Amino acid sequence: MQVIGALLVVLGGTMLLPALTDLQNGAPEWRVFVLSSAVTAGTGLLLVLSTRTTERSTLRLKQAFLLTAAVWTVIPAFGAIPFLGLGISYADAFFESASGFTTTGSTVLVGLDELPRGILLWRSVLQWIGGVGIIVLAMIIMPFLGVGGMQLFRAESSDRSEKVLARSSDLVAWIAAVYGVLTLLCTLAYAAAGMTFFDALAHAMTTLSTGGYSTHDASFGHFQSEALEWIAVVFMICGGLPLVLFIAAIRGEPGRIGRDPQTRWFLIFLAAVSFLAAVWLSLRTGIAFDDAMRLVAFNAVSVVTTTGYASVDYTLWGPFAVGLFFMLTFVGGCTGSTAGGIKIYRFVILFQVIKRQFRMLASPSRLEAMKYAGARIPEDVPPSVLAFLTLYVATTAAVTLILVLLGLDFVTAISSAATAISNVGPGLGEIVGPAGNFSTLPDMAKSVLAVAMILGRLELFTVLILLDPGYWRW
Amino acid sequence: MQVIGALLVVLGGTMLLPALTDLQNGAPEWRVFVLSSAVTAGTGLLLVLSTRTTERSTLRLKQAFLLTAAVWTVIPAFGAIPFLGLGISYADAFFESASGFTTTGSTVLVGLDELPRGILLWRSVLQWIGGVGIIVLAMIIMPFLGVGGMQLFRAESSDRSEKVLARSSDLVAWIAAVYGVLTLLCTLAYAAAGMTFFDALAHAMTTLSTGGYSTHDASFGHFQSEALEWIAVVFMICGGLPLVLFIAAIRGEPGRIGRDPQTRWFLIFLAAVSFLAAVWLSLRTGIAFDDAMRLVAFNAVSVVTTTGYASVDYTLWGPFAVGLFFMLTFVGGCTGSTAGGIKIYRFVILFQVIKRQFRMLASPSRLEAMKYAGARIPEDVPPSVLAFLTLYVATTAAVTLILVLLGLDFVTAISSAATAISNVGPGLGEIVGPAGNFSTLPDMAKSVLAVAMILGRLELFTVLILLDPGYWRW
Repeated sequence: MQVIGALLVVLGGTMLLPALTDLQNGAPEWRVFVLSSAVTAGTGLLLVLSTRTTERSTLRLKQAFLLTAAVWTVIPAFGAIPFLGLGISYADAFFESASGFTTTGSTVLVGLDELPRGILLWRSVLQWIGGVGIIVLAMIIMPFLGVGGMQLFRAESSDRSEKVLARSSDLVAWIAAVYGVLTLLCTLAYAAAGMTFFDALAHAMTTLSTGGYSTHDASFGHFQSEALEWIAVVFMICGGLPLVLFIAAIRGEPGRIGRDPQTRWFLIFLAAVSFLAAVWLSLRTGIAFDDAMRLVAFNAVSVVTTTGYASVDYTLWGPFAVGLFFMLTFVGGCTGSTAGGIKIYRFVILFQVIKRQFRMLASPSRLEAMKYAGARIPEDVPPSVLAFLTLYVATTAAVTLILVLLGLDFVTAISSAATAISNVGPGLGEIVGPAGNFSTLPDMAKSVLAVAMILGRLELFTVLILLDPGYWRW
Repeated sequence: MQVIGALLVVLGGTMLLPALTDLQNGAPEWRVFVLSSAVTAGTGLLLVLSTRTTERSTLRLKQAFLLTAAVWTVIPAFGAIPFLGLGISYADAFFESASGFTTTGSTVLVGLDELPRGILLWRSVLQWIGGVGIIVLAMIIMPFLGVGGMQLFRAESSDRSEKVLARSSDLVAWIAAVYGVLTLLCTLAYAAAGMTFFDALAHAMTTLSTGGYSTHDASFGHFQSEALEWIAVVFMICGGLPLVLFIAAIRGEPGRIGRDPQTRWFLIFLAAVSFLAAVWLSLRTGIAFDDAMRLVAFNAVSVVTTTGYASVDYTLWGPFAVGLFFMLTFVGGCTGSTAGGIKIYRFVILFQVIKRQFRMLASPSRLEAMKYAGARIPEDVPPSVLAFLTLYVATTAAVTLILVLLGLDFVTAISSAATAISNVGPGLGEIVGPAGNFSTLPDMAKSVLAVAMILGRLELFTVLILLDPGYWRW
């Protein structure tokens, strides 16, 4: 409770940033932010004070699950308050805030170009905090919980003790520094290529966090700039890479992460898909190959890294593009990055499992060990990947069924479910597609999708374990 | 090669059955069957004679994979010959034949009601042979290959020796007898409830084999009979249950199969889905509950058992029905039955894996053994389920991508791919939906789908292992 309280105080403080922006621009909306800030920080302070204890308690495993799920619910709940100033319902505001903090990037707001800068900045800030939040979670908390893939990179897989948390303050500082520097570089690059400083900063925040909120309804299509799109491609890829890779590179300690196959396959996959789809698009529509390459690379990288910017409505390229982008929705980035989705390392492990299965079928007596980044894959990793994938598909199916029950058509329902759980952003079809908007969905559907985003962001287990009656018995 | 030759001789012999039917009805098409029979049996005889050896060779593991895949390719290839008499292309004929032999039940023929009886009987016979063929394969060959789920029921999971094949002639006799008796019972029930004897026999053959070919364009909708639909529900469920269950019951030796959780969950799942969807349909459309129950039960059982009969166009019930039936396409029946799909026992194992994962997350030190039917699940089963599911999804995705590349719309493509790989029959959308027909698809798409049916029928591994370069090296 103390942790949540403290985080709310910080969140409240952050809200003063857009307040200042609005004040500077003479927009009267600054009052909304101050009020939101007061409510949030006040609640946080109350929480901290009311639960103050003298003993310094250590975090137990069970509490860590609850705390993580609580943080990812409470922050969007309070982060939604400033959106109420736009006169939208709380369901809409919570959707927007959850979509921001989980770095999904689906929006219910229309007419972004006319909104005051404060609220636009708030959307970007939410994604930026959510992005760094998930990296810290993936690198420090989740290995301790046994969820996510970062435990593959620990020397001893049994190292799930409290020690990990103790050594972590150094790591948090490094994460914050690298994340900050990358955002700064991205801002400068965007500004140099023609964005206003405000647009550059707002987009840099949502690029590195692979969030995808834009300050314009047309997303990157607004700028019509080849240079900007290529810059975005580079920094979206940075956002989809494990942040620890940059830290390792700076410190000159590549270690196991340097031989990480997920990085290699992530880059190979993006290059291959972009190239092949560009050849197809060029042949089909007669667009020059370099234009096709840019169009495909931008939108494919945007979906695979789960950013969700769009430069054109790729669903107009025909059924092949629709099918391709639907599948790309599931891929995701690397573990330890801000990207969501199924994530590359799971595919690497799946491939190893299938390879071994074929070997075993052909000669049952031979048993080869599966390797990842040069080390043996721990025995418990394949079952955990299996459990994750099953829950992923089951959750997508369940959310789809709820959405069709609420009256959405099948394509809208299944693509919204997939895009929410993968934290991508755009779905398929006229309503939720890259040219569309989630605003016309029923409130109930928005709430379900907001919950799906949080589920997906926390790699399902962290939340679903709380629904297991067994969890509360121990 | 000898085996394939012998099977072709038998197949050629079987073709004389529809020839007799046509002759009896004075239809001139009997000549087509005699000619097809001569070609097929002749080729078979040539194969047998040319590869005749005096030594009785034992089947090696590698050859068993090749033989299985070859049988499921060669039989549809020759089984397609009689369809050429209808003046359709070989691609169409092969699609129809493969869809029959794999008990899928998708059709490219329009105007079934006007076709001569011989060809209608041939379609039913193909499914009926394909049904008993897959049971023999699943119970005798596949456990020896380490594919499919029947190895769960062997006392020693290491029992993958040649011995299994030796004791199998008894088992084949039992399978044939039980399958025959069930078909007879179903024929009598259909006839008693009002079908002509020919319709009753043709439908009984495609009910027990969970194939789904009908002698009418409107499928079961043609009869407009409640009694017939309920009879079909009962026998489709029989087709989806492990045949060995009936054998065990007759011999009074329940053994492990009697405690088989897949049977229990299969029945519970069908009852629950039918009941809930019937409540929904009744509330939504105002249909009386008992009518809704029958409509839903018939069509849901038809899809889950991968039969593929339709009594109405359920896609007209709205997006919830579309989403539900799409998901039901993947479920499948029990292992050791004629049904396709992912199959219930895999879901049971997935559930066990997830349950254990949650337990492990909550208390990492506790490791519980996973059980199936009272016995410990062998260590290699969860990875093989993981490998299967991954290949299942990957194959569906690959086929979908090929189909959208060929110009099909997304829903048609993804639902055709799913329905082919699961051996169900109908897809979604106007073209391939329950009221539609595969005839208008491009030839290339039909061929891809025919291959997908064979892949799905042989549980993927059996065929895909042949594409592994490693397979040919050993």
